[in-house]
Amino acid sequence: MGLPHPFDPLSAAEIEKAIAVIKKTHGNVFYNVVSLHEPRKAEMTAWLADRAKAPRPARIADAVVIAKGGKVYDGLVDLSSGKITKWELLDGLQPIITMEELQLVEHIVRKDPKVIEQCKISGIDEKDMDKVYCDPWTIGYDERHGSKVRLQQALMYYRPHIDDCQYNYPLDFCPIYDADKEAIVAIDIPKIRRPLSKVEPINYHAKAIEKAGGFRKTLKPLEITQPEGVSFSLDGREIEWQNWKFHIGFNYREGIVLHDIRFNDKGTDRSIFYRMSITEMVVPYGNPEHPHQRKHAFDLGEYGAGYMTNSLTLGCDCKGAITYLDAEFPARDGSIKHIKNAICIHEEDDGILFKHSDFRDDSTIVTRARKLIIQQIFTAANYEYAVQWIFHQDGTIQPEIKLTGILNTYAMNPGEDTHGWGTQVYPGVNAHNHQHLFCLRINPNIDGQNNSVAMTDAVPSDAPVGSPENFYGNAFYAKRTAFRTTGESKTDYNGATSRTWDMCNPSKLHPYSGKPASYKLVSREVPGLLPKEGSLVWKRAGFARHAVHVTKYQDDQLWPAGRHVPQTSGEPSLGLPQWIGDGTESIDNTDVVLWHTFGVTHFPAPEDFPVMPCEPMTLLLRPRHFFLNNPVMDVPPSMCTTPSMVAAQKAKDKEGGDCAGCKSKL
Amino acid sequence: MGLPHPFDPLSAAEIEKAIAVIKKTHGNVFYNVVSLHEPRKAEMTAWLADRAKAPRPARIADAVVIAKGGKVYDGLVDLSSGKITKWELLDGLQPIITMEELQLVEHIVRKDPKVIEQCKISGIDEKDMDKVYCDPWTIGYDERHGSKVRLQQALMYYRPHIDDCQYNYPLDFCPIYDADKEAIVAIDIPKIRRPLSKVEPINYHAKAIEKAGGFRKTLKPLEITQPEGVSFSLDGREIEWQNWKFHIGFNYREGIVLHDIRFNDKGTDRSIFYRMSITEMVVPYGNPEHPHQRKHAFDLGEYGAGYMTNSLTLGCDCKGAITYLDAEFPARDGSIKHIKNAICIHEEDDGILFKHSDFRDDSTIVTRARKLIIQQIFTAANYEYAVQWIFHQDGTIQPEIKLTGILNTYAMNPGEDTHGWGTQVYPGVNAHNHQHLFCLRINPNIDGQNNSVAMTDAVPSDAPVGSPENFYGNAFYAKRTAFRTTGESKTDYNGATSRTWDMCNPSKLHPYSGKPASYKLVSREVPGLLPKEGSLVWKRAGFARHAVHVTKYQDDQLWPAGRHVPQTSGEPSLGLPQWIGDGTESIDNTDVVLWHTFGVTHFPAPEDFPVMPCEPMTLLLRPRHFFLNNPVMDVPPSMCTTPSMVAAQKAKDKEGGDCAGCKSKL
Repeated sequence: MGLPHPFDPLSAAEIEKAIAVIKKTHGNVFYNVVSLHEPRKAEMTAWLADRAKAPRPARIADAVVIAKGGKVYDGLVDLSSGKITKWELLDGLQPIITMEELQLVEHIVRKDPKVIEQCKISGIDEKDMDKVYCDPWTIGYDERHGSKVRLQQALMYYRPHIDDCQYNYPLDFCPIYDADKEAIVAIDIPKIRRPLSKVEPINYHAKAIEKAGGFRKTLKPLEITQPEGVSFSLDGREIEWQNWKFHIGFNYREGIVLHDIRFNDKGTDRSIFYRMSITEMVVPYGNPEHPHQRKHAFDLGEYGAGYMTNSLTLGCDCKGAITYLDAEFPARDGSIKHIKNAICIHEEDDGILFKHSDFRDDSTIVTRARKLIIQQIFTAANYEYAVQWIFHQDGTIQPEIKLTGILNTYAMNPGEDTHGWGTQVYPGVNAHNHQHLFCLRINPNIDGQNNSVAMTDAVPSDAPVGSPENFYGNAFYAKRTAFRTTGESKTDYNGATSRTWDMCNPSKLHPYSGKPASYKLVSREVPGLLPKEGSLVWKRAGFARHAVHVTKYQDDQLWPAGRHVPQTSGEPSLGLPQWIGDGTESIDNTDVVLWHTFGVTHFPAPEDFPVMPCEPMTLLLRPRHFFLNNPVMDVPPSMCTTPSMVAAQKAKDKEGGDCAGCKSKL
Repeated sequence: MGLPHPFDPLSAAEIEKAIAVIKKTHGNVFYNVVSLHEPRKAEMTAWLADRAKAPRPARIADAVVIAKGGKVYDGLVDLSSGKITKWELLDGLQPIITMEELQLVEHIVRKDPKVIEQCKISGIDEKDMDKVYCDPWTIGYDERHGSKVRLQQALMYYRPHIDDCQYNYPLDFCPIYDADKEAIVAIDIPKIRRPLSKVEPINYHAKAIEKAGGFRKTLKPLEITQPEGVSFSLDGREIEWQNWKFHIGFNYREGIVLHDIRFNDKGTDRSIFYRMSITEMVVPYGNPEHPHQRKHAFDLGEYGAGYMTNSLTLGCDCKGAITYLDAEFPARDGSIKHIKNAICIHEEDDGILFKHSDFRDDSTIVTRARKLIIQQIFTAANYEYAVQWIFHQDGTIQPEIKLTGILNTYAMNPGEDTHGWGTQVYPGVNAHNHQHLFCLRINPNIDGQNNSVAMTDAVPSDAPVGSPENFYGNAFYAKRTAFRTTGESKTDYNGATSRTWDMCNPSKLHPYSGKPASYKLVSREVPGLLPKEGSLVWKRAGFARHAVHVTKYQDDQLWPAGRHVPQTSGEPSLGLPQWIGDGTESIDNTDVVLWHTFGVTHFPAPEDFPVMPCEPMTLLLRPRHFFLNNPVMDVPPSMCTTPSMVAAQKAKDKEGGDCAGCKSKL
């Protein structure tokens, strides 16, 4: 192993070194974050341009610790000098909740007398407190409790048997947990009580299925093999595949981060994106009854797609020849938590890449496509998110997210009206309406750093039917609206005009079309934020107010709901709204960042319970006016006949041969 | 072979029998169509309900012939009695253009003196007329020529070499061909002339790629095998797979037609759809200059997705264990044209079906998905359409269409302004803006014939932020608008509200949710018709005016732009607008048909040339409130551990065993 790539996540040794430095100066603290502080773009760009001669960016650890008394510090540690270069006490900000912090709550809840009392009221015997579970969430924001004290809300459930799906038995009250005191400090109790459901559970584990009639036996095996191995190569975490080259990073917060995405265009190494990730998300629930407004998880900013990521050894999550990358994080006590197989990398066949037949003689070319998939799966309490970064041979990048896992559920009484805010998915189980809104952050680098963004709408000509300019009324065109300022870039989706957004290099015009080299964002699952303007969610999740925002690049502007998200009030809105400010900053032909919010609105149905079949959601980043022409014509075809070959075969057939390459007649 | 299923396409023997009957009475005619006249629904429904006792619907041939003098007859032939039961002379209607009719034009064009003269003006030597090609299209509608004479417009091209891609060299004039006279009767010549381009061709065939540096060698083989065979069974053309059962039909017009789609829901045989197909499409081009307004192909109604379908022997179009079905059509002279492997059927792995991990102990269930694909590919001159009917285990049906092939191109002079109506994709090659709008026809049969349709929009509560009903502003719900009449059903897409449409059985309420058993149409590529209201396309393609229309079921109302589409003027608009009329007919709780128009707007780019990488477009039909709960829990998991198993393993580990089923620490 040589030196790490500057974008590589901190290794276990580097994390340990940073922790040793902190411990020496600040004693025993809880380690919330020790993660790569990404190199400043200017020095990183210089190094990428000339790795041999440019100075190698320093390895710096970004650390967040919680000291006794709940004091939170943000720090930076230079790993080569072993110096702390920044150490800042945060006031009224709460850092991300780690898995270990979450794990603690359940044990404390079970022993709390007031919780035991509420369980009794719900119909649970005191001796059954080991059957009481909670999914601890950050409190989000509750104006009664503010932001100074580190809090979690405990969504309560009951499991009659350890293997039962707890989401069958939601309880109706909600304890509030103080992380510093490690104690329950309040309980939210609804006006209408909903005692524990007595309905038989529905389960999806093997014993339950066997009991219900067993597994189906009608599925024959399907095997996918790559006898000569994979078509990609990895140098550290830099991957090369089918003209693509990029670096696969990973952090506690965003999970997979792709850096320095380049394409070898017939021998010319071209840059496309400097950095790309899913950088934040919010899951607002639509039930207005207190305290359900607090259910609007920022799964990345509050819990971390890295921290929650699955070890893919635990489940045959992919087929074929799979390559894995591990992840390393600090544990709370400063030891190392190792996640084996945190990322998987594999290829899949992708159907037809292109095909054409000449109808005159049936001469045919057909070429099959291959795709490369970089995947992680993370578990956010009840839900699972499978995040796939799919690379296509034709220069398209397709982020795809599959939603599965279990619905968040709440108790309901028999015959109770959901008022349209949820669905009874099982007797006594109310699954509330919710949205999953993801923020894709893209720092384009299309043939260089100076890029622009425009919006394209498919619209009819203004000229009326019967006018000389549009006599037959069929004229339509791509209306382009260039964004000059950050304010102008705040735009919503328009399905009626098939709206898309283009990132382009205005200095690089295509020799044929005359249009700038572009990547087009084609995204069709863009529901918009349903919580209203001025609502708590609207204030906290500023990034979700519009489908697209564009900002001028600034180092460290990575996370659009703020660096520290738990318990932010949204007053002021952190992150993106602050960075945009009055909206006057120029984003024309400069280093820009595009923030795209997409997702789904989910009105649950019984089919989603007790475990939800995958609901996929996807978007495309497509090269337009970027390549001289179709960039995949050199992919070996499955079949290729030309008119001259068909004619030659026909001539041969007349002499009595068999017709192998052409249809018998047309 | 027993008796054919009443939905089976006519066999070669049946087609021959119908032709013999017609020939006996009407002498020598050109056979345009001899296809299954589908059984009346009332008698078919009775037969499906009791195949043993109900009368078997008769086999009837639907025939269209062209007699000398261009006279067109619509007829029906009862195949058991050998009687012609209907014979009707059409007035001013032109039936579908067959491949054979198309093939003729090129030979006539090459010999026509006026065409030769125009070729000379374009810079083509008279002795090179064998290098002149045309893609013959129906004329669409041209008010100067009307509908009485059967016409084609010849889109002209030049091929320097027989294997060159002709779309490199569009010619600027357009001969009009009279099918009865078999002669060119007019030529449209533009005001601005655009002589033949002298630019080197760009080609995608093997020789060209070898010359340009050869095929890439970086792709390792990927093999997909099913060692124990496929998981579906076919009884004639009735298929059973993973609880699904349906009949796979095929006709000259729509290609694949799926009938009587049913699901075995834990032993209960439930009907879902009576009939489903892509039933029409239109491809309007956006250049207003005469005669480009005539380019708005109704590929199904004017040419036929069946007639144009590829034989899938000619190209390795699928991977794995593939089952094929053939197709048989009449040739013009009454002989039989056999298309081997017109339909392919196969399974594919489909990634994760569902997954959940308990964050407390990493107990995990993960189950892989399989899908079934029924596919055809058809070639409409330059373009290829791969139509896939994808069935998922969870009850979802996913029609997917992949667009590939070659752009329709037109000549442009060096430096000419496209005025935004097209893109120069290669020097001298203008690819005009266009849309591909498909009409999906669905006759739902959700737990019986009486169904209703509603529209669902995701909207915020009306109550303002701060009001008691919506204090935190997060309330949102699914707003349902039921369609009482055909007029009310005419609805457009709304991306802002993630609009969907539900087909439901209002008499079948879900025991948990209380909502009707439904199939939800989730479609996000719904651009709307860009040609304006009152335009030629708008008049002819009435189905494309709205994303959804609903009608009351009527036998024979299959094709929404009319039964005979070529040369319709749109005055009046045939098909759907006629059937809806004043819009007062009730569609509430009755036998209904939903017509959904979806597609893409394509602004070409150089990446699409000379052959276009597949552009996929898809939609979902999802069961909602239809199944009692998740219907795929009995699919065998790849891995399934429960908390009790993890605990047992941990206990064992303490005694010194290996940890096989759980992570080492968390």
